[in-house]
Amino acid sequence: MRSGAPFAYEGLDRLFHERGRLAVCTCLIANAGTTRFTALQEACGLTDGNLNRHLHALAETGIVALERVRDGNRYITTVRITADGKARFLAYVDELEAVVRAVNANEPARSTNPAGLRLATQP
Amino acid sequence: MRSGAPFAYEGLDRLFHERGRLAVCTCLIANAGTTRFTALQEACGLTDGNLNRHLHALAETGIVALERVRDGNRYITTVRITADGKARFLAYVDELEAVVRAVNANEPARSTNPAGLRLATQP
Repeated sequence: MRSGAPFAYEGLDRLFHERGRLAVCTCLIANAGTTRFTALQEACGLTDGNLNRHLHALAETGIVALERVRDGNRYITTVRITADGKARFLAYVDELEAVVRAVNANEPARSTNPAGLRLATQP
Repeated sequence: MRSGAPFAYEGLDRLFHERGRLAVCTCLIANAGTTRFTALQEACGLTDGNLNRHLHALAETGIVALERVRDGNRYITTVRITADGKARFLAYVDELEAVVRAVNANEPARSTNPAGLRLATQP
C-alpha cells in the first residue's frame, strides 16, 4: 500500500474519507448492528438528502446493506455495515491511525503522557 | 464544537481533510521545520501541480508560509507550517483521533491489547 512516499497515505480511500460517510461508518461500527435511518441521521447530524446520498454510495459499493422493514403500520429503513464493508473501513481507520501516530510522535508535548500515547490515557 | 450529533465530527475541517493537504501538514509537522518544495513533493507523492495547488490553499489561509531562497545560483521554494497553522492542524488531528478511538472502542478484537489501545502497543 505504501509507495516510496512515506506521507502519501494511499490507504485513505476516498469512499470513506468524505466526512459524512466517515460519520456514518463510525456510527454503524459503534452501534454494532442494524441502525434505523432516522437514528443514523440524528447521530451524524445529516439532512435526509445527504444521508440518502451517502447511503446510496455506500450501498452501491457493498459497504452497507439497506432494508425496508415493517414497523407497525408503516415501513422504515434500516442500515447495517456488511462484513466486507467493515473490513474495508477498518483498513481505512488503520491509515487514519498512522496519521495520528505520525503527528503525535512529533508533538509529544500535546500529550499528558510523555511518550505521546494519547489514546491510552483517554479511553 | 460538538452539536447534539455525537458522530457529526464537525472538527474535521475541510481544509485539512483533503488527502493531499493532510499529507503535506503531517509531513511538515514530522519534519519540524522548514522543508523544501521538492522534498515535500517526494515525501507526499504529489505532482508539481498538485503540491502547488495545495500549498496555495494552505498559504492563503495562513497555515503555511512559503519562501523563495537562493541556493547557489538558483532559487528554491521552502515551506514551513505557521504557529497558527500548527494549532489548527493539531485540533483537526484531535478530531481524527476521536474517530479512531470510537472505532477501536467497539472493535477491541482488532487490537493486540484487549483494551483496544493500539497506539500504545505500536509505537
